[in-house]
Amino acid sequence: MTLRLYNSFSSQKEDFKPLQDNHVGIYVCGITAYDDCHLGHARAAVVFDVIIRYLRHRGFEVTHVQNITDIDDKIINRAREKGVSCKELSEHYTGEFHRDMESLGVARPDVEPRATGHIQNIIRLIETLVSKGYAYAAEGNVFFSVEKFPAYGRLSHRSPEEMQAGARVKIDPQKHHPMDFALWKAGKPGEPAWESPWGPGRPGWHIECSAMSIRYLGETFDIHGGGQDLIFPHHENEIAQSVAATGKPFVRYFVHNGFVTINGEKMSKSLGNFLTIKEILFGYHPEALRLFLLSKHYRSPLDYSEDLIREKQVSLDRIYATLGEALEITAAPPGKRPGASATGVSLPPEAEAACARIKDLKKLFYQAMDDDFNTAQALGHVFDALKGINTLLQISKMEPARACLDAIGSGVSAIREVGQVLGLFATEPGVYLQKRRTEKLRKIPLPEKEISDLIRQREEARIKKDWAAADAIRKKLAGANIILKDSPQGTTWEIKE
Amino acid sequence: MTLRLYNSFSSQKEDFKPLQDNHVGIYVCGITAYDDCHLGHARAAVVFDVIIRYLRHRGFEVTHVQNITDIDDKIINRAREKGVSCKELSEHYTGEFHRDMESLGVARPDVEPRATGHIQNIIRLIETLVSKGYAYAAEGNVFFSVEKFPAYGRLSHRSPEEMQAGARVKIDPQKHHPMDFALWKAGKPGEPAWESPWGPGRPGWHIECSAMSIRYLGETFDIHGGGQDLIFPHHENEIAQSVAATGKPFVRYFVHNGFVTINGEKMSKSLGNFLTIKEILFGYHPEALRLFLLSKHYRSPLDYSEDLIREKQVSLDRIYATLGEALEITAAPPGKRPGASATGVSLPPEAEAACARIKDLKKLFYQAMDDDFNTAQALGHVFDALKGINTLLQISKMEPARACLDAIGSGVSAIREVGQVLGLFATEPGVYLQKRRTEKLRKIPLPEKEISDLIRQREEARIKKDWAAADAIRKKLAGANIILKDSPQGTTWEIKE
Repeated sequence: MTLRLYNSFSSQKEDFKPLQDNHVGIYVCGITAYDDCHLGHARAAVVFDVIIRYLRHRGFEVTHVQNITDIDDKIINRAREKGVSCKELSEHYTGEFHRDMESLGVARPDVEPRATGHIQNIIRLIETLVSKGYAYAAEGNVFFSVEKFPAYGRLSHRSPEEMQAGARVKIDPQKHHPMDFALWKAGKPGEPAWESPWGPGRPGWHIECSAMSIRYLGETFDIHGGGQDLIFPHHENEIAQSVAATGKPFVRYFVHNGFVTINGEKMSKSLGNFLTIKEILFGYHPEALRLFLLSKHYRSPLDYSEDLIREKQVSLDRIYATLGEALEITAAPPGKRPGASATGVSLPPEAEAACARIKDLKKLFYQAMDDDFNTAQALGHVFDALKGINTLLQISKMEPARACLDAIGSGVSAIREVGQVLGLFATEPGVYLQKRRTEKLRKIPLPEKEISDLIRQREEARIKKDWAAADAIRKKLAGANIILKDSPQGTTWEIKE
Repeated sequence: MTLRLYNSFSSQKEDFKPLQDNHVGIYVCGITAYDDCHLGHARAAVVFDVIIRYLRHRGFEVTHVQNITDIDDKIINRAREKGVSCKELSEHYTGEFHRDMESLGVARPDVEPRATGHIQNIIRLIETLVSKGYAYAAEGNVFFSVEKFPAYGRLSHRSPEEMQAGARVKIDPQKHHPMDFALWKAGKPGEPAWESPWGPGRPGWHIECSAMSIRYLGETFDIHGGGQDLIFPHHENEIAQSVAATGKPFVRYFVHNGFVTINGEKMSKSLGNFLTIKEILFGYHPEALRLFLLSKHYRSPLDYSEDLIREKQVSLDRIYATLGEALEITAAPPGKRPGASATGVSLPPEAEAACARIKDLKKLFYQAMDDDFNTAQALGHVFDALKGINTLLQISKMEPARACLDAIGSGVSAIREVGQVLGLFATEPGVYLQKRRTEKLRKIPLPEKEISDLIRQREEARIKKDWAAADAIRKKLAGANIILKDSPQGTTWEIKE
């Protein structure tokens, strides 16, 4: 099987072949460390986390480089507002970003370079661009001259006119052309500045990614990733800088993830339509957020709503409940296993279909992921296998057979294996379910002891055939979101979602 | 001022001059991810964290590379014992390591390469060594031939005989010389293996550090760090591999931290003389551990005991108490500041000495750190400045003067600035003190309300001149580790350390 991925540069799916043996160099644009990370950051992080996990799972040796922009207009302005230094501000938000990624189960990059740690690399790259005639200095600034680079606009598939419209360029008398962009910015009083051949100043935003990707992955590398919003101007500028400086192709595959909207609208702080990762994880399990983020193909737009994330949380709870039940039944000592002694029992026809679903999971999962990392389809196959396991669990309770148990066991293994690629189902089901139970208990107004007391009173009322009293207790509990389930073994209770 | 550091290679202190401009490339040997990190790991981590922070503070642009060994005999054996895959085991302990470092406030390396992510680099380096005649294959293994590298032993200053004695070498018929070491190990059944020109196998331990340091820092780089125990054979082997392959010098400065002992004896799991980072941080604040680890010069041996760490905890509490008091007094609105209106008041002579102590802190701190990162001396200067602040705080209470407040304020700033280099005093004093109070309260047998009730009862007894009753209450509280402090403003209480 060949892995195919959509290359934004060619606007089509292409066979993936790394430049060198089975090694893959991937650069993903990281954060500008000036504020808490939001849902959009979470999507990009989880999408590229899964892409990289899948490449590794498929046997590629991946070097993942992801930068931290720790000097930038946004940082300077925010630091000034808060009355702290740029360094303090960027270090604080880098730490918060790390904690968010840890919560989300996103693996660390192999290389996490910070812009301020690579000023020398950046200056040398700008010097090359100036000496080759692609860049010019003006009053302590250095600009890239887009007219000197005819391929400018090839990634974003835009004409110069469209680009100008899109970029809302202010006319700057220092620039030769309105689309020219800053490689180096002259220092202003009170701003951090480094010595350079053009006087004290600081790097523009785009140049750091060229300098740091070349340094750690070489002049030409395999994959460059980031959100769709980075195609223009950021990645367009990176290509111009890098190709102009090295004379070599820059990136072989550009991979971009789609936008996130909230309740059908663009995320916007000023409209109050905005969610940080921390806000979401306050109410939901990190894997519920991952499940949500992976439920659509990474290039499609993704709409977030409370209803959708709640649905994913319920779905995750069910998955863990199934895995927990499956593990319990397959881990039971042979004597206590249902069906352990019932070899040769003929299985109902639905069992065969269930076994087939389970058996095909890994093959189908690879097919889906090989097709441009189609996690939506891959998750569909996971749910099919879970349905199969549930069917077999039901059958095992009624008509036990070793074949069922074996299929359940291999289903659980397969789900956990593909779960490693998706960053899902990583917790022991028992631990997960206990934690969720505790969380839910915290939300109901009755202590557990009172619930069991009420259930006992209801039991007594029912024995005395005092149906009114029994029903009153049921209603009281329902009012506290406690749902009773009567069975021949007794009454159990659940918390209503 | 010139930064001087002790180079294990030359066995003397040398002026530090980076290879290229003000950029410093530093490679520090990381963990083998097969178990929880212990006190020895904490020392190396904190020592190099402070060295790197200081280099950055001094304006160097530092690239810090630190590897994770995620394939190794120890990992294979432990994974087998635990019945998990090597990947699961190493990922688990890598995660635990990351959490320990986060707790200790150790900054992340810029590049954190894992061995299994660089098998191609490793294979190419071994191929070079084989083709240059420095290495030979034998039944799927590849060994480095130490006889071909006459400089072998130069770092550890050992003769071949001493090395052989130190290494307790088993005689291996495949080796040309007993000191030859494995670059590539033939795969055994059930062990992870990668394809190679010598058949399936896995890299030896030493070669990964040569391959990954060359890849990320170049063939020659500035500083290589690690614990003393790595000098031989690990760093000796790294030098041999790298110099033989590239024909260039490998590392300009080798920096090694000293051993840690516990109660005067070698740490050893089998003797029960062993502490993990988590165990220590269960009882003490991470900064107390940093304070302990930095209290001796990094090259000296360091002995750990409960008494010593408790002492550092008490010392840290006092520092925060001083900082808190100082911040409170300097942050008070001008009208409420003692001495705000008392300009021109002549200060007692001890105030001048105190001001001088504070004024010199930064200069003395840089002097100490420039002298081979002498954190012990640097901390001495911090304590001197704190003494100065305490003196001025006392004076401010009695004979207020604006000069005192200014000196206190600049003392706090200087201590916080040098604290950033040492990774100390990073918490707001109010937050720190509140947290410590809560922790201590958890350890005393009386609830806070009962303590204040008892203090009120004692007050009443004293008013009635019932000294026996008052004293009984004092004794009762002392029995619960509550110490009373009577002052004209009333009675306060403290928890005895």
